[in-house]
Amino acid sequence: MKNTFGNNITLTVFGESHGSAIGAVIDGLAPGLTVDLDYINKLLALRRPAGEISTARREADAYVIESGVFEGKTTGTPICIRIPNEDTRSQDYSATRYLARPSHADYTANCKYHGWEDYRGGGHFSGRVTAAIVAAGAIVLPALNKKGIKIGTHIKKCGGIEDRDFSEAILNEIDSLYDKNFAVLDDAAGNKMMEAIKKAKSAGNSVGGILETVVLGMDAGVGEPMFDTVEGLLSHALFAVPGIKGVEFGAGFAIADMTGSNANDAFFMEQDMVRTRSNHAGGINGGITNGMPIVFRCAVRPTPTLGMEQYTIDMAAMTDTVLQSKGRHDPCIVHRARIVVDCITALTIADMLCTRYGTDWLVDGK
Amino acid sequence: MKNTFGNNITLTVFGESHGSAIGAVIDGLAPGLTVDLDYINKLLALRRPAGEISTARREADAYVIESGVFEGKTTGTPICIRIPNEDTRSQDYSATRYLARPSHADYTANCKYHGWEDYRGGGHFSGRVTAAIVAAGAIVLPALNKKGIKIGTHIKKCGGIEDRDFSEAILNEIDSLYDKNFAVLDDAAGNKMMEAIKKAKSAGNSVGGILETVVLGMDAGVGEPMFDTVEGLLSHALFAVPGIKGVEFGAGFAIADMTGSNANDAFFMEQDMVRTRSNHAGGINGGITNGMPIVFRCAVRPTPTLGMEQYTIDMAAMTDTVLQSKGRHDPCIVHRARIVVDCITALTIADMLCTRYGTDWLVDGK
Amino acid sequence: MKNTFGNNITLTVFGESHGSAIGAVIDGLAPGLTVDLDYINKLLALRRPAGEISTARREADAYVIESGVFEGKTTGTPICIRIPNEDTRSQDYSATRYLARPSHADYTANCKYHGWEDYRGGGHFSGRVTAAIVAAGAIVLPALNKKGIKIGTHIKKCGGIEDRDFSEAILNEIDSLYDKNFAVLDDAAGNKMMEAIKKAKSAGNSVGGILETVVLGMDAGVGEPMFDTVEGLLSHALFAVPGIKGVEFGAGFAIADMTGSNANDAFFMEQDMVRTRSNHAGGINGGITNGMPIVFRCAVRPTPTLGMEQYTIDMAAMTDTVLQSKGRHDPCIVHRARIVVDCITALTIADMLCTRYGTDWLVDGK
Amino acid sequence: MKNTFGNNITLTVFGESHGSAIGAVIDGLAPGLTVDLDYINKLLALRRPAGEISTARREADAYVIESGVFEGKTTGTPICIRIPNEDTRSQDYSATRYLARPSHADYTANCKYHGWEDYRGGGHFSGRVTAAIVAAGAIVLPALNKKGIKIGTHIKKCGGIEDRDFSEAILNEIDSLYDKNFAVLDDAAGNKMMEAIKKAKSAGNSVGGILETVVLGMDAGVGEPMFDTVEGLLSHALFAVPGIKGVEFGAGFAIADMTGSNANDAFFMEQDMVRTRSNHAGGINGGITNGMPIVFRCAVRPTPTLGMEQYTIDMAAMTDTVLQSKGRHDPCIVHRARIVVDCITALTIADMLCTRYGTDWLVDGK
Repeated sequence: MKNTFGNNITLTVFGESHGSAIGAVIDGLAPGLTVDLDYINKLLALRRPAGEISTARREADAYVIESGVFEGKTTGTPICIRIPNEDTRSQDYSATRYLARPSHADYTANCKYHGWEDYRGGGHFSGRVTAAIVAAGAIVLPALNKKGIKIGTHIKKCGGIEDRDFSEAILNEIDSLYDKNFAVLDDAAGNKMMEAIKKAKSAGNSVGGILETVVLGMDAGVGEPMFDTVEGLLSHALFAVPGIKGVEFGAGFAIADMTGSNANDAFFMEQDMVRTRSNHAGGINGGITNGMPIVFRCAVRPTPTLGMEQYTIDMAAMTDTVLQSKGRHDPCIVHRARIVVDCITALTIADMLCTRYGTDWLVDGK
Repeated sequence: MKNTFGNNITLTVFGESHGSAIGAVIDGLAPGLTVDLDYINKLLALRRPAGEISTARREADAYVIESGVFEGKTTGTPICIRIPNEDTRSQDYSATRYLARPSHADYTANCKYHGWEDYRGGGHFSGRVTAAIVAAGAIVLPALNKKGIKIGTHIKKCGGIEDRDFSEAILNEIDSLYDKNFAVLDDAAGNKMMEAIKKAKSAGNSVGGILETVVLGMDAGVGEPMFDTVEGLLSHALFAVPGIKGVEFGAGFAIADMTGSNANDAFFMEQDMVRTRSNHAGGINGGITNGMPIVFRCAVRPTPTLGMEQYTIDMAAMTDTVLQSKGRHDPCIVHRARIVVDCITALTIADMLCTRYGTDWLVDGK
Repeated sequence: MKNTFGNNITLTVFGESHGSAIGAVIDGLAPGLTVDLDYINKLLALRRPAGEISTARREADAYVIESGVFEGKTTGTPICIRIPNEDTRSQDYSATRYLARPSHADYTANCKYHGWEDYRGGGHFSGRVTAAIVAAGAIVLPALNKKGIKIGTHIKKCGGIEDRDFSEAILNEIDSLYDKNFAVLDDAAGNKMMEAIKKAKSAGNSVGGILETVVLGMDAGVGEPMFDTVEGLLSHALFAVPGIKGVEFGAGFAIADMTGSNANDAFFMEQDMVRTRSNHAGGINGGITNGMPIVFRCAVRPTPTLGMEQYTIDMAAMTDTVLQSKGRHDPCIVHRARIVVDCITALTIADMLCTRYGTDWLVDGK
Repeated sequence: MKNTFGNNITLTVFGESHGSAIGAVIDGLAPGLTVDLDYINKLLALRRPAGEISTARREADAYVIESGVFEGKTTGTPICIRIPNEDTRSQDYSATRYLARPSHADYTANCKYHGWEDYRGGGHFSGRVTAAIVAAGAIVLPALNKKGIKIGTHIKKCGGIEDRDFSEAILNEIDSLYDKNFAVLDDAAGNKMMEAIKKAKSAGNSVGGILETVVLGMDAGVGEPMFDTVEGLLSHALFAVPGIKGVEFGAGFAIADMTGSNANDAFFMEQDMVRTRSNHAGGINGGITNGMPIVFRCAVRPTPTLGMEQYTIDMAAMTDTVLQSKGRHDPCIVHRARIVVDCITALTIADMLCTRYGTDWLVDGK
């Protein structure tokens, strides 16, 4: 449903880039979960632009929890988190009101909303809105962690540079990814990526990349085929993150070139645990978790806002024209999108678990 | 929701591979649409196994429309299509009841359903169930065609062999794809693919591939962000098709390696029409159609059922063991999955249009 | 959603009165539940017309379970129950095709479906379709019973005659209601009701009544306010039963005339159990069960099909006209609607419990 | 879904009586609708306690529209309306934390949320939360009015006193009901009702009543049976309003005592319009509008908070005890609930119309 997602735990998102506030309502979350305000701030900071590789817009993200939390714990009723917008320069956009920025939602929003949309800074289509997803996810993630479920995302590729693969050792310390603003496993590769971003920026250009996510600690048997498969629900949620153009699980598109004997993940017993020797299925068979790590990757497009001139149309005059953006913008959003992916994943995984185990499951173990 | 998908037009799927019947209920479809029984048969035939490159199981797909169609037209109330199962050899499966076929849903279904699942031939997880999707899609597709919307899928890659790309000329004749059992644009490439499939079969192995789909004739302005984006709804539906492990739109994962200036699709006016010079976004900006062709690709895994021995576990004894499948199976499902992709796409696209334009839209134009 | 209802356990209904079959798909039901074919027959018989007080149409209700049941147990995947239509006399309806039967759905269906609806015998709006609800409920009811939850409905009023109230003694033997074709607590009152029905029939007229339902054995704490309250979900489902025009909980409309001190249900401890001295709230406070019996009543209209002449319009000519029905019909549907109410209640209650306790709850206790 | 309601236009409600704010997110509303801030204030004032017949709590309802409105018009993206709580005396509630107020949600919330609920002033179960529904409805109502649809509710009965019935003349001036704080058709009856309320108040008691609502101007053909009937959707929504214990359409429970020949609404042509001579069906046949006024009534219980002593339990000690409420409270909520009923009706009706005619329908006619 439009701006609400989830079956038993739902997330409703509202707000525009240059409105008074953005925010989210999380419903269906178990009562009694600890809400750690510092942790919310920590995750919001991971999404926030920082340094040369980001936009100059600076937001405090001084969020307010309006409901659903009482004396530091979730009450079980809807949690509204509101994040005021502060550092907006709306006048930057009025001059170019009718110039459709290529590969942005300006033109499609104009078609859908017949010109009534809040066009400033991308309005509801701005990446700004994802701060609400992060704030919501920051409540759910610690609850999942207490149940033994961990989620981590690294920048698999950015500006053409590849990060190292997840290893068993790294998976054991996956929490440490949340201590990194630029979430790579190999810092040397990370530095090269940041160089590529800066280089693109100085050319008025931008770069894209690939995010790789792993979910650890899931029981086998979670997922609701035929339609509410793990892949179906996660991809549905992930494509809400602006800039994602592809989602693949396990071996993903590479599996197309394998034979069955290479692709199949042989089961074996490890002590009393069922495991698979490879994990080309990404922890999911028939849309249901098999107990192995869930692994997926998201393709993130280069930021469409560029410093250089671009050909486009004037939507009012319906004529060809040229656009040169003056708004502040990111030369890359891959590193910022990463925590959004973690958080939307946490919400979706929590929803699936709550469907299977009931509304109280998240807190039962306490 | 589990086995029901869609917001305003919904598809509910039921049935197991070796039960008495599989089928679908389509609800919310406009009244007055012509139901062409021959066309349903034609599309079912495209999914049906045929020749050396498929399983030896032969199904007549002698479907019955139980409701929702009166005097050859849709009534507007739920359409139940039932397809009896006929050529089942259930005894093939009893001996291997507890041997989890690698990368099949045997183990995960056993975890989820605690052993109560109908294990024969994959039960509800069998590709057999997709016949119901095809029958449902075969009612919706002609209705979309009459509104100027066309959907076509070709085998972009199979067994390592690549097909030619869509060209403007081919898009103009996209209907002709429905005349092909093995839907390639370049028949020479198709022959090589079929050779690869046969070779895999003779080795007791299997191959995978990539399907590429295009949707033509969509208005700009369709899609319901933030969550019910075109990408989100389509991917959610597509991952219900057994064997799909990745979905990408437009340039997809390749966009990760582009710069913004390469990736952006410049708008321009062509007579009175807004168009883009490239289509790296796959016809979708901000989750909403922009009037260009919607383009996406699905990665299809090699069939997990193999003729060769595989290591696995015995789910009853919880011990390591070895499996040699005796059931009939496909050395490749890519060519059969193609019409399923067309049909689930048709249903999802029709649902989006119905959300935007109301329940009667499909028939209004008649 | 149109013909699908429920959040975690869903019911999808299809079929027309004079089509080839009606039926239902039940999804989300726990695996391992026993499916008792005789019990389904027993409940279908309670809905079936019988004797002078019903229509002369005779249906065997020879249902077929097409999927979701294996070796006598639910598998956890969708259960399709199909009930073929047999005793149809469709020619009865063609002559009066465009005569809108007053208070039937003929006119509104014609408006909604633009004349494409299957008009024979009320089509999808026929009470016939409720047989599918009964068959579905007959799978869920025994499973609820095993968890200690019982549901019973009696004819509180019919043709102006009132039945006795539920007493503690009767609640202890509520199962015995399923042994009665005409479900009253006081058989003498029942006989008078049947006399009233016969009298109406002989006059070419019909009578209505009130059904009262009780749900015993519910835990406190079930229900999902603000919207998915017990009252909200039950009433939503109950109004799907043709002929129901009002739903009230506990004291219902009578509470409007009470003062707070009379209406309030005082809590007290009975041994270790929390109970209330009265039950004017019908076992529900704030939309959530409080552990007392859930009590509600449904107003059932007199059957709109009459033997006598009625003024109406010709929908084709758009002129005033007179109608004399020739189809077979019921002089009263109250006694037949009763088991439909039991069954739709069972499905809705099971869905609520499954939302709270997870998909496996129904079977966990076994 | 819990705190979100609607299919194509959705309302999500959040907040607690003594939290920082309550509010609503309205999604799916057409772009370009005028948002009249004064009108929102006017409707909020109708819900606000006033004078002797209400609680002494005084709320400014100084709402803020955080998103979805730009330059005075809806944008088509989610509208978040936040209403800060101001006049809270939370300390009133701490002493009685574990005393379950009879017929309130204290006990059931405690069961459902295991004691983590915000208990102050009823928390999320407080009538305070309905202010958010009113604010949301106040955006939708004027848009419906412009499409010719009017909604009006009067106090049919209160404290045992009955109001006059709707007459044709009154229906023509139904807008004038919005000018009345105490919405009766017969002011003399209204004065008697207010006397009854004051009398109950002085006795530390409370009274209930019945609200009657009419929806004018609906096309025939709206509603989505079998489940999303007009009755089903409206009742589902209406039972979210605290204190409503029954909903009936048209003749409602009185129809149970009619014969078919009395109950049936004979169709006739009035010029080119199809009308019915009576309206016992309340404008709905088979769950679909027939073009006559939709008429329904809601039973509203007497406020459960009383000034007098009441027997109850201590939920912590699990012992019998006696409660004397000290919080401010209403001796009657019928007159305040009335605008909530109007507003939730407006949202539900708009949703149904949007399902039938598409997302843009509300604004198309402008």
